Amino acid sequence: MNFTDPGDYRQRIKKSFARQGVVQAINAEISRIEHRLVEIELPFHPKLTQQHGILHAGVIAAALDTACTYAAYTIIEPDASLLTIEFKVNLMSPGRGERFLFRGEITKPGSNIIVADGRAYALSDGPAKLIASMTGTIMVMKGREGFEE
Amino acid sequence: MNFTDPGDYRQRIKKSFARQGVVQAINAEISRIEHRLVEIELPFHPKLTQQHGILHAGVIAAALDTACTYAAYTIIEPDASLLTIEFKVNLMSPGRGERFLFRGEITKPGSNIIVADGRAYALSDGPAKLIASMTGTIMVMKGREGFEE
Amino acid sequence: MNFTDPGDYRQRIKKSFARQGVVQAINAEISRIEHRLVEIELPFHPKLTQQHGILHAGVIAAALDTACTYAAYTIIEPDASLLTIEFKVNLMSPGRGERFLFRGEITKPGSNIIVADGRAYALSDGPAKLIASMTGTIMVMKGREGFEE
Amino acid sequence: MNFTDPGDYRQRIKKSFARQGVVQAINAEISRIEHRLVEIELPFHPKLTQQHGILHAGVIAAALDTACTYAAYTIIEPDASLLTIEFKVNLMSPGRGERFLFRGEITKPGSNIIVADGRAYALSDGPAKLIASMTGTIMVMKGREGFEE
Repeated sequence: MNFTDPGDYRQRIKKSFARQGVVQAINAEISRIEHRLVEIELPFHPKLTQQHGILHAGVIAAALDTACTYAAYTIIEPDASLLTIEFKVNLMSPGRGERFLFRGEITKPGSNIIVADGRAYALSDGPAKLIASMTGTIMVMKGREGFEE
Repeated sequence: MNFTDPGDYRQRIKKSFARQGVVQAINAEISRIEHRLVEIELPFHPKLTQQHGILHAGVIAAALDTACTYAAYTIIEPDASLLTIEFKVNLMSPGRGERFLFRGEITKPGSNIIVADGRAYALSDGPAKLIASMTGTIMVMKGREGFEE
Repeated sequence: MNFTDPGDYRQRIKKSFARQGVVQAINAEISRIEHRLVEIELPFHPKLTQQHGILHAGVIAAALDTACTYAAYTIIEPDASLLTIEFKVNLMSPGRGERFLFRGEITKPGSNIIVADGRAYALSDGPAKLIASMTGTIMVMKGREGFEE
Repeated sequence: MNFTDPGDYRQRIKKSFARQGVVQAINAEISRIEHRLVEIELPFHPKLTQQHGILHAGVIAAALDTACTYAAYTIIEPDASLLTIEFKVNLMSPGRGERFLFRGEITKPGSNIIVADGRAYALSDGPAKLIASMTGTIMVMKGREGFEE
């Protein structure tokens, strides 16, 4: 099995995604996996809202963090795992739409620290609307206790 | 009805909380409301985890953002509403525990912009363990379209 | 005087820049002004370092914040002014180089809140090296006391 | 030489501080060093301002990052060094005052990653005024190339 085989990280990402309680619960789906880039899509549901009826910031953060982390999976060795150290989210427009797209991309690869940027879009009729951005810092771990894949 | 009556913001917070789809879905409860401080508690559930079986960063962000926003509710006028502009979360320790406590406190009040800080703790036997922190920037809105309470 | 005249914001930016004590002190220069984008360049100097001899994070933050704020100047009305509410900086590679380039771009325009993203590069022989990124939240103010231009 | 000797990290911090080009240039001084806490003071100077005549965000970031990093020096082994990965600054009130105080404190110690929080205050007649806060993520390095102390 060759790490440079795109099928490799695709399978590891899908296997890991299937174990994500939260993203399963919100019906998120991985819609695109490329080298250094992952996209997640999510249909609107009233359970995903905050008090104003728009997509909850926590859902946006969860989906962006997931997209960023899986984008990082495409650049690490198969036996390494990842842990998000911190992230910042800017909420730019109210999260209204029929579907939402969350894109995570690697800004800075690294053997210890990876920096990824994410963008969240609301999809309806018409052009996609940017609703939020994330910058996240992700630590690469090799065989640490409790975090094995 | 007097804004300085502590019962006032308590009731508005509880009413708003009851309309929060996400925090209802994760069984979060408001456990403390004081002037400039709100605490939320959450029992552990496997649905709230990420791929390593620990509390998902998105859940932590959702709960901390909620605690910070409601802390801000205790210092605004009854007819104003709030919108989180951005937040940063540092994930410090794996979110393992039987219950979790999320405290939001006002660091800087303001008529337009409020800055709040949050801390998340895992509760089990023994002392509470700090698992995450948040700094959030919240905008005060007066009668804006689409955000009425 | 027409706000859409590119010469307008260029002159206001240069006039404001000339009053910036800090960026003058570090010999920064504005090298590019476009609609929604401003670049600042800075030659290396030992006074700009931290204890490891690389560009100090504070210098990077100052230059990125300045580039982002001036990018915002290109989209506001001439009598408005700007105040950075908060920013986050990721330091990705040591700031070593002969010159440094700081680019600020508008990610989300707004009448009250503008979100800008910045990137810092080290320039030497060879390709530019990404050394840092910033996301900043900027408030638009109209005739506020103490902040008039 | 014993690491637990408070004199140890005090001397290493002062020695490192003396090599900081930027903080020397702005006349900052270390005014307090305790276990997990460092304070830096800075007199106002027109060279430290932005276009509105108040303390430049980059100066605030530099001083807070320095205070946070030196707070981290008090908890690491003598042969380790530190590198700030990222920080977020909230600017809460205009930086006006005769002097400024920057306090950095350790929020989460760690062998690889340290999280620190900083607060900046303006000092004049009357009570200190909170002007800014920082949360920073600092990496502990052991004998890495290019970062030796």
